[in-house]
Order: sequence, then C-alpha cells, then structure tokens
Amino acid sequence: MTALRASDRSASAEPAIIEKLHADYMKPGVLSLAAGVSYMKPPQDCLSEALEAVLKSESADPHRYGDVVGDQDLLEVIRWKLETVNKLRGQEIMVTAGANQAFINVLLSITDVGDEVILIKPYYFSHLVALQLCDVVPVMANSDSELKPDPMEIKASITPKTKALVLVNPGNPSGSVADRELVEELETLCHDAGIWLISDEAYEHFLYDSEAHYSPSLYPNQVINIFTMSKSYALSGWRVGYLSYPKNLSDSMLKINDTVPTHACRTSQSIAAKALEDHGNFPAVHAEELERNRDEIWRVVEKYATVKTKGAFYFFIKAPGVYDDLEATRVLAEQYNVLVVPGTAFGMPGYLRISYAGLRYEVMKTAADCLEQGLRYLSRIPPEDEDAKKRRD
Amino acid sequence: MTALRASDRSASAEPAIIEKLHADYMKPGVLSLAAGVSYMKPPQDCLSEALEAVLKSESADPHRYGDVVGDQDLLEVIRWKLETVNKLRGQEIMVTAGANQAFINVLLSITDVGDEVILIKPYYFSHLVALQLCDVVPVMANSDSELKPDPMEIKASITPKTKALVLVNPGNPSGSVADRELVEELETLCHDAGIWLISDEAYEHFLYDSEAHYSPSLYPNQVINIFTMSKSYALSGWRVGYLSYPKNLSDSMLKINDTVPTHACRTSQSIAAKALEDHGNFPAVHAEELERNRDEIWRVVEKYATVKTKGAFYFFIKAPGVYDDLEATRVLAEQYNVLVVPGTAFGMPGYLRISYAGLRYEVMKTAADCLEQGLRYLSRIPPEDEDAKKRRD
Repeated sequence: MTALRASDRSASAEPAIIEKLHADYMKPGVLSLAAGVSYMKPPQDCLSEALEAVLKSESADPHRYGDVVGDQDLLEVIRWKLETVNKLRGQEIMVTAGANQAFINVLLSITDVGDEVILIKPYYFSHLVALQLCDVVPVMANSDSELKPDPMEIKASITPKTKALVLVNPGNPSGSVADRELVEELETLCHDAGIWLISDEAYEHFLYDSEAHYSPSLYPNQVINIFTMSKSYALSGWRVGYLSYPKNLSDSMLKINDTVPTHACRTSQSIAAKALEDHGNFPAVHAEELERNRDEIWRVVEKYATVKTKGAFYFFIKAPGVYDDLEATRVLAEQYNVLVVPGTAFGMPGYLRISYAGLRYEVMKTAADCLEQGLRYLSRIPPEDEDAKKRRD
Repeated sequence: MTALRASDRSASAEPAIIEKLHADYMKPGVLSLAAGVSYMKPPQDCLSEALEAVLKSESADPHRYGDVVGDQDLLEVIRWKLETVNKLRGQEIMVTAGANQAFINVLLSITDVGDEVILIKPYYFSHLVALQLCDVVPVMANSDSELKPDPMEIKASITPKTKALVLVNPGNPSGSVADRELVEELETLCHDAGIWLISDEAYEHFLYDSEAHYSPSLYPNQVINIFTMSKSYALSGWRVGYLSYPKNLSDSMLKINDTVPTHACRTSQSIAAKALEDHGNFPAVHAEELERNRDEIWRVVEKYATVKTKGAFYFFIKAPGVYDDLEATRVLAEQYNVLVVPGTAFGMPGYLRISYAGLRYEVMKTAADCLEQGLRYLSRIPPEDEDAKKRRD
C-alpha cells in the first residue's frame, strides 16, 4: 500500500523561506528590511483607466478567458518595450503570472528530469525550489569577490548534463550588476558549451552609480529573458511578468502556460499595458527615489559588506560576530525589531540580505537605526552559553 | 554538445488544443460551441465594490505581494462555503490562480517522477498535459455506457505505482454526474488501494434534472478537492480557484504555490470573496438560466448522444458519418460556421464535445441550427475522394 504523504520532490524542496520568516518574526512593531518589493504605489492613472474600463464594460469579455500567450494590447507594448529598452528583437513573447511562473515555464520547456542547471551563489531561492520541483539537478557556482558571476567558476560547473545557466542580473540577493562585457562573456561561454542562458532581469531598472542594464541577445537562439511588472512598476500583487524566447520553444511554452495559469489575470494585463505604454519613465524615477534609502542603509552596513553593489535594492552583508545567520536574524527581529533574510536562504550561510526598498525614507531611517544597533550588538557579544540557552528554551 | 531545443517532457505533451482550434477555425462569423465558460457576467456589485476599494486605497497594500496561501478574507469565506455547501470540514485551504494551477500544485505535492495517476476517459485535456509535464504516467480507465466513472475499470487500472485517481465531477467533457453513492464507492476504492482521490469539482454548481453534487469527504486524509470561481461565478479571466487538502500536505503546497504563481492576483481574490459571500445563489441561478440552452442543443444532438448527461454544460456525442472527429470539426467550422471540440482532445476519437454555455439563448438557437445542419450533412455524405482532397489541398 502506497503511503499517503507528500511527494519526495516537494518534501525535499527548500521551505518557503519568506513565508516562514514572516510567520516567525513579523510581529507588530517589527520593521521589514526583508521585503523583495518597494514601498511605491503603481501609477494611479493606469489603475483608474484599466479598472474603470472594466467597470463600464457592457461585455463579459474582460471577465472571460483570454489568449494563453497574453492579451494582444499588452503583447504589442511589451514588444515595443523590448525593442526600444532592451534591444531585443525577433523573439517570441509570452505574458505570465509573474516572473516566478515564467521561470517554471522555462524549466519545463527546456529541461528534462535529471538535467543540470547552474545557479550562481548567492542564488534566488525560488529558482532553487523550482529546480527541485521540476526534478532538475541544481549545480552551484560561486560568484567572485564582488558578488558578480565568475566565468571561470561557471565554466568549471558545466558537465555533459548541463542544460542552462541562470543569471539574475541585477542580482537578487547580491545586488551586483554584471555589465555588458561580463554578460557577453557569459553568453559566449553558454554558446560555446551549447547550453541555454536563462536571464532573469526582474531588477533591470534598479541601477545606481551610473550602472547600465544590458539584456543578453548575442545568441538569441539560446537565450531566454525574464521580466516582471512587480518591481519596476510596483505591481507585485497583480502578478504580471513576461518572457522572450526563440521560436522553437513556442509550442512548448504554449502548452505549459495553458496548463499552469492558463493566462495572467486579464485586468492585471490591462494595467500592465497602460503602465508600460504611458509611464516608461516611472521605473527610473522609482529607482532614483530609492537612492536616499540606499545611502541610509549603506552607512549602516558598510563595515559588514564585501562590496557596495550597484543594482536591485539589496545589500548582501556578512553576519557579524559569532552567531550564525539564522540566529542573527532571530536576534535582529526579536531584540532589535528589524527583519532581514538570512543568507542560508540563498545558499550562503553567514550572510544577511538587507532590502532598502520596502520602507519610506522616514521609516527606513528608524529601521536603519535599529539595524545599526543590532549589528553592533552582534559584532561584540558572544553567543549565549549552553546553560543560558537551555533556560531560554 | 547539448541540442538547444524544447525538453522531451514539453515536446511530447499534447498540444494546447483549444488555442489551436481557435487559431485554425475561429474566423469571423463562426459561433463557438467549444467554449469552456458561459456567456454570463459576474455579479456587478462584487466588481464595483472590489475595484472601487482598490482605486480609493491610499495604501500600496492591494498592489503588493500577499500571503502565499491566499488573502485572509477570501480564505475565511471559502472555509464557510466549503463547510456549508460542500460539507467539507477541517481541511487546509489554499487559493490558486485557477483550477488548472491547483491541479499542478496537487501533482507536484503528491507525485514523483514515474508514478502513475488514473484518468477516466473522456478525460479533461489539461489534466493529461499536467501529468506529462510533471513526468507522471497517465493510465486511462474507460467510463461506463453512460459516460460515468466505472469502478471496475478503475480498479483494474490500479498498480503498485498508482498514486491517485482523478475524478472530474460533474464531468468535462462528459457532462455526466457521479452521484453520492458512486462517489463514495470510488472513495472507498481509493482508500482500500491506498491512493489519493483528486476531486476536480469545477462544475459543482452546474446540475440539471434534479441532480445533486456530492464532494468526497469520507476519507479526508486521502482526498484533495479542487474548485474554481471561473465557471460558477463567470470569473475565468480573473484566475481564481481554490483547493482543500489534508494538513500533511501544507508544507509542500506552500512551497509549490510560492514558487509557481506566488499567489493569485489580489484584486481577483477580493472580487471572489465578495462573490462567495454575497452571491451564494448566483451559481444556481446561473445554471438554471442555461437550461433553455441545454434543451435547445439536446434537441439537435439527441440522436447522436449516448446519454443525456446532467451536469457541467457539455454533451459528448458521437461524430456522425464516416469522417473522423478532427475532420468533422473542420467541416462544422468551415462549412457550417460552428465550432466544437473533437473527442480526440479528450482521449476519445470519434466523439465531439458540444458546449451549451458560451452563447446567449438567441444566438445559441442560431448555433444550434448550424450544428443541426452540419451534423445532418456529416451523417449522410461520404468523405471527399482522394482526388477531390488533392484538388482542395
């Protein structure tokens, strides 16, 4: 008789880390530097236009199934955005219910059970879980001393079973930016090895200190680019992402999207279309507004950080002192009212991810103060001795 | 060097049949009896309340990430609905981006590569594709002469590798209803065999001729119930479904949902909460309104149907004449301006699925006339001879 329990693939996958952190530590009064999203509101006129159109519609159409690849209006404006902003041309485009679901589509469309896919440490945790759920073997490549992809490390990770390299650029949680030269080196490396480059560009617009974003496109037949409306347009709750890929994946992508979400919420797609069409400047202004936050947090974390990374909205720092990162996270949340994400979640124990986007500047300053005190405490205080620990538990 | 092409699992999965049908045949003037959704609009006040609340919100909250399991308001009203309507108690509940995505969650949470899952023919095509994408082996069990699940056939399909039986009740595409006695027999059969029962109840409210819906709950530790807002509340474009399952799957379900859609669109969830809370009667009225359509289509298909099935909004009929179902579908669309779905899509070549929900009564009458003429033509005319076919191509 078969035991009625969870599957091995789901049971052995990593737990949903952010959910667990929130459940354990996100008590009233705790300020979150854990958020993977900014405090911004999306452009109000996009919401008004799209929602009022739905409310006024006599037809049932906005409420009914749409095209699996996405609604035409949105696809057109995405095509225009990809051509003008990302310099990507001639690829197929699909709208998804966010970038995570886009990544699942990519894995199912290009990998089979037992294939290997290379993640760069520190990796984005949902990528690892996705690989585990899809029975693909994750192979980890270390990044360099500046938390950037290291071509030598990646090259050394390639085996005959490798199907793809995953590049998150700008990096989550590293915040590091791979410039055009480095991305082209990775593209060429993938091309020479005959593997896919999966380019997750969720943070494409979050760049500081004159960094520029480059979307890989040297070898369009072996690159898949993933984008999202969640970060750039503060639309995470609406669940819209998109991806571009070569034509020989079209049939597979269509089957997969049809079978997983069917399509993204149609009203979310309308909002996304209006945002991309009318507010091309919003993401840059959005990122600019975060600079004050970034400076404030950098002031606090500078002495614990390897490098002042120039992208996304994270610093990835060494957990100071003798606590491990999980315990440091607990101390920061319980004693200093500030939530961060332990590096263990990204495959790098001993580190902490600090987000500088989730709180408005005024509140961020308070959070930065809490963090500063917490990090100082961690730096100099030894861990509880075993007796004290037992008494506490 | 690895060839850069689609994965075997995605390439060998069945194509997205409805998308292909629409692309091939849904020309201007063609009336669709292929739709898996009704012509109804969702209750307007739910839309107004939910969308106006979003528009008025000062906070960014409705636009930001929500809980992976779903928003609390919606979970509470789902719990109440499951207890009062479905008599399901004590199970875990999760909101998904539609019932298809719920099914993917279920497969990933309870099956491993190489496991077998039993589908009952005619099966719902997305279930087959989901199995293929998840590397699970589909095992087909024939239904009985009234298109209902046949316990003997199912029992004979069970092997040591079987992990679950999938029951779609009311059936898509069969339209057949398994009554409480039959469902309990299947529950017991699954229990005795030590396998899961995955109960897809997307059409729970679409019942005619005094049929009643029964949600399996005899052995709550081995049943997973899937529901959707798409059919009952005409909210397919908003992508909201939900599922109930035993507690020992909670961790797995959480990981999976976090990694696939993250969560359903939050505004869709608000609309769903208001619909379930304020419009408990809507689905029944909705189904009642379809009875005229059903009568109209039954009049036309009666002589081609095995049985007047009493659920969902489909009749599953024999394709008359000597054409196969794919060719019959082509003839009906191209020559009679009416689109149906070939039985091949559901694992039963030689049949056609006719939906009576997609068109308002007045238009449905015209579609019924087209269908009547088309079916009559198919019944008596031999197929083109080879020469004529060559001339046409």
